Amino acid sequence: MIFFDCSTAPNPRRARMVLAEKGLRVETREISIAGGEQLRPEFRAINPQAMVPALVLDDGTLLTENLGIAAYLEALEPEPPLLGRDAREKGLVMMWSAIVEQQGGLPIAEALRNAHPAFENRAVPGPVDCPQIPQLAERGRMRALAFLDLLETRLRETPYLAGEIFSFADITAYVFVDFARVIKMRVPEAHEATRDWQARIAARPSASA
Amino acid sequence: MIFFDCSTAPNPRRARMVLAEKGLRVETREISIAGGEQLRPEFRAINPQAMVPALVLDDGTLLTENLGIAAYLEALEPEPPLLGRDAREKGLVMMWSAIVEQQGGLPIAEALRNAHPAFENRAVPGPVDCPQIPQLAERGRMRALAFLDLLETRLRETPYLAGEIFSFADITAYVFVDFARVIKMRVPEAHEATRDWQARIAARPSASA
Repeated sequence: MIFFDCSTAPNPRRARMVLAEKGLRVETREISIAGGEQLRPEFRAINPQAMVPALVLDDGTLLTENLGIAAYLEALEPEPPLLGRDAREKGLVMMWSAIVEQQGGLPIAEALRNAHPAFENRAVPGPVDCPQIPQLAERGRMRALAFLDLLETRLRETPYLAGEIFSFADITAYVFVDFARVIKMRVPEAHEATRDWQARIAARPSASA
Repeated sequence: MIFFDCSTAPNPRRARMVLAEKGLRVETREISIAGGEQLRPEFRAINPQAMVPALVLDDGTLLTENLGIAAYLEALEPEPPLLGRDAREKGLVMMWSAIVEQQGGLPIAEALRNAHPAFENRAVPGPVDCPQIPQLAERGRMRALAFLDLLETRLRETPYLAGEIFSFADITAYVFVDFARVIKMRVPEAHEATRDWQARIAARPSASA
């Protein structure tokens, strides 16, 4: 299989972390988003959605979206489990993945893409240009702050988002919280549980994959 | 377990369809969103996120988010498989679920919640009030139309979104496309593959669950 990556973007980083946790070495091609390579015809022939990460299987199947790539890799290489070990844990991993995507990743992306000059007319990823909405950037910032509070509340209850073990939900949250630096947002000093969780994940080899 | 439902809202309907496909009968409580019951202290004591669907397991674990509920139910009752039978199919189901959520469900919700008077100051679901952004309603409509095209393109290639078999991705897309009536958007006559797919799903008992 071939993995289409971008070393500067948060979503490909999530897939890289899954590959690293599974110990899978995969042929990788860098697509520079800064250079607009994802929008060129060569890459759109591979993924018409013009987005990374993308994983092309040996039979030619295109898998996009972190959830799709993670579900495939979990079935291909079940160890270590990243999507839960039993029914309850599988439910909690997917629940927290969804919460983090909707209440963390989306607002952070909205705050960045609807305000930063580099995303002028690129407020939504994908092949179609889209103008910025400054009010949505503001809403995004407000919701991203609320997400950091939600994260702290949860991590005071359990060591990892889905409970006792590190999972795909932690990968997603860790990458998005780290990426929030682009909107000049950091975990507050008082969020001790989140800071401890960040330090534990930063120490994993996959965090620097 | 206890299922917290709302008969008029699209997201609880997705969970109802999963329960029906699995043949699971579960104690159900109706939470009227029109009546604001999801925001009352009684329900927030169960789900502080103030959203349905929610599934409370016998050990007290709260599962929210359709992905969380579907992953739990798939592990509890694997037949019929709704999240894929092998690695490739599992990847495709999750990939299409994510695409449908982000490019279909989200824009339709944005178009509705940022424009309809019933959602004044309720532009984002959950416990915190949030003012409407009319420009985002417009963007949502534009993206929802593009999503209908994407769906038609895919369904001309394969009978169901993830390929040969009906899956959770179809449930998600079917419910959102049906719900798009609230923004006065319907599948165009010319989208024959989508209309055929809709008819096949409407004939399943779970569609009227």
